[in-house]
Amino acid sequence: MNINDHYLKLNDSYLFSIISRKVRDHAEAYPGKNIIRLGIGDVTRPLVPAVINAMKNAVSEMGNSDTFRGYGEEQGYSFLRRAICGYYSLKGVGVNEDEVFVSDGAKSDIGNILDIFSVDNTVLIPDPVYPVYVDTNIMAGRRITYAGGNTYNGFLPLPDNKTKADIIYLCSPNNPTGAVYNREQLKLWVDYAMENDAVILFDSAYEVFVRDEKLPTSIYQIDGAKKCAIEFCSFSKTAGFTGTRCGYTVIPHELIRGGAALNKLWLRRQTTKFNGVPYVVQRGAEAVFSDDGFSQIKNDIDYYMGNARIITDALTDIGIWYTGGGNAPYIWMKCPNDMLSWDFFDYLLEKTGIIGTPGAGFGAKGEGFFRISAFGSRENVIEAAQRIRKFGLERYWEIME
Amino acid sequence: MNINDHYLKLNDSYLFSIISRKVRDHAEAYPGKNIIRLGIGDVTRPLVPAVINAMKNAVSEMGNSDTFRGYGEEQGYSFLRRAICGYYSLKGVGVNEDEVFVSDGAKSDIGNILDIFSVDNTVLIPDPVYPVYVDTNIMAGRRITYAGGNTYNGFLPLPDNKTKADIIYLCSPNNPTGAVYNREQLKLWVDYAMENDAVILFDSAYEVFVRDEKLPTSIYQIDGAKKCAIEFCSFSKTAGFTGTRCGYTVIPHELIRGGAALNKLWLRRQTTKFNGVPYVVQRGAEAVFSDDGFSQIKNDIDYYMGNARIITDALTDIGIWYTGGGNAPYIWMKCPNDMLSWDFFDYLLEKTGIIGTPGAGFGAKGEGFFRISAFGSRENVIEAAQRIRKFGLERYWEIME
Repeated sequence: MNINDHYLKLNDSYLFSIISRKVRDHAEAYPGKNIIRLGIGDVTRPLVPAVINAMKNAVSEMGNSDTFRGYGEEQGYSFLRRAICGYYSLKGVGVNEDEVFVSDGAKSDIGNILDIFSVDNTVLIPDPVYPVYVDTNIMAGRRITYAGGNTYNGFLPLPDNKTKADIIYLCSPNNPTGAVYNREQLKLWVDYAMENDAVILFDSAYEVFVRDEKLPTSIYQIDGAKKCAIEFCSFSKTAGFTGTRCGYTVIPHELIRGGAALNKLWLRRQTTKFNGVPYVVQRGAEAVFSDDGFSQIKNDIDYYMGNARIITDALTDIGIWYTGGGNAPYIWMKCPNDMLSWDFFDYLLEKTGIIGTPGAGFGAKGEGFFRISAFGSRENVIEAAQRIRKFGLERYWEIME
Repeated sequence: MNINDHYLKLNDSYLFSIISRKVRDHAEAYPGKNIIRLGIGDVTRPLVPAVINAMKNAVSEMGNSDTFRGYGEEQGYSFLRRAICGYYSLKGVGVNEDEVFVSDGAKSDIGNILDIFSVDNTVLIPDPVYPVYVDTNIMAGRRITYAGGNTYNGFLPLPDNKTKADIIYLCSPNNPTGAVYNREQLKLWVDYAMENDAVILFDSAYEVFVRDEKLPTSIYQIDGAKKCAIEFCSFSKTAGFTGTRCGYTVIPHELIRGGAALNKLWLRRQTTKFNGVPYVVQRGAEAVFSDDGFSQIKNDIDYYMGNARIITDALTDIGIWYTGGGNAPYIWMKCPNDMLSWDFFDYLLEKTGIIGTPGAGFGAKGEGFFRISAFGSRENVIEAAQRIRKFGLERYWEIME
């Protein structure tokens, strides 16, 4: 009996547990201090009324023999897949119902999609990025190469023809940087993928936060993408489903590799290793796309984006470099005075009581940067912005003295 | 770019689609004929009131900012894991909370658990069996060897020391045969696994149907099993969760292979590739173990087992060999006159309008056998039993003439 020893090559994922411990220690050292948590990327607004009503009705249906539902199709109920296709049509993207796979969240699909690819592919991953891309490929033993983000490229790395890759991860709007690729930049990636016979795994979990109408919210808005890209999306951030679990993956029929339609391979994977999303949850997700549902979630998105604006205004005022915040719920700031990420974490907590996430936790190129999340309450975010401004002013006098 | 070409070695899973087509054709040929569906293994009774109430309350909580829940722990909420440990203690089995992993169903976990094992292991699979065991291993390119069931061993194959295996699947009560291993038989498997440094993947999805108190309902009731077995269980058949999706997997801390604790490997897999089960569903699952919930689901189990008894009585009366039905919701019958499974499917549908599942769909050793499910309505099952009796009598006269 041998275990999969690629698991032994994984780093322990200490990021959020170290943060928890540091915060606990700090709270004990300074009892009564008002600590503001802008670290974790979890939503705080409750599910909207349209979703709640749909879920309550669905629960009632499950308690009645005439309306009870047993096994559903692994790829999701038709009512939800049709609603998702309708959402895509608003983006000018035509997607067929059988190109949509409903799942329990983008995280599951982004990890599990690797099942359909050979382990001897080379993977290209942006740095910094959501750690799941790296870890799932280490687990399978694939070669990984990185595309580095920095202040010069605005944390939007572009393809380098000297690098050969088979599987390419892109996340736009990006977690953790909040940066968003424009159409011309994504077109470069699509062309690169076609030239390299590669597949782009496009994570669009934060697409609903894009305010600038010129920016793409689906990779399929780029010519040729249906021949080279799989898109992952989620209700987690769109509609507060982080604890309700629903997402979807689109695999166009045109996407063929090694003579096989990837749509059919994924269908076979899902029908064999997955049994669908709860009926009650799918009814909730469907309601997100109703008129009431969509206007209610838009209010919540506006609320979070108002938070982001309050934070970025404060950073602008005190002259700190940042990206994100305008079309994403994350603000990615440079640590002042070339501080390292963890040093700045400690310093900011000490000076202001604000908790963010050290950029180094998202990859080597994240060192020296820091992520602030806009998912807090308005009250906390206003207070945090005031502390950031005061902190900036104090730093100014410190330097002057 | 290479795909995972092991997928190309899979047989298409036509079983239930062929059945659907044959039934549709038959219904069109004989309009008005009352067809009774005892084929698919899906439940028909609605969720019990205790579960419905818990889910409704949980939905309300999700709509209120004070009680809203975002991300939960990937391995499940503590309230549910504690309830599961409590259920195990009723079986005389001590399980710690951190040995329990809540999931969206046994099917997902049974497929995904293979991630933590090397692909160069040899897998031992009973035949006939739930097709997911075979397909998930073909997808990963593992060597598969089979342990054949037949009327002589009552479809309960035992270990053969001449066969070397690293991963062993057992399903008891069995799908499709309904046969249940006793303690002595399971002890032989535990001893074999320990001698071979192997791991048993024990699927106990049907444990709640066991009526005979001498039969084991968890492999951990067998001495030594915590050092060699992972157990998968589900609320699907226990509490009608086939469309609500919740299951659990137990990996004891004592289970070490290749120097690694399998519990820790699985925790790493789940925290990286899974994001937990919906809060609303976990509250529903918790309610299954409440006093009200448990007595309500017991009524449903009794109902299904009453169905099973009606069917087995009819088979006994007309002298047909079968196993299962006494401690499982499936009855596995020998096709009369040595008919092949599919021939009997056609014959039975033609003569009686009853739909079952051809045994050949569950493996080569299933040829010549036929699965009948007890998950129908009482009315349909009584009618089916009458038709089976009449059919048996007519066959008798046919032979006489």
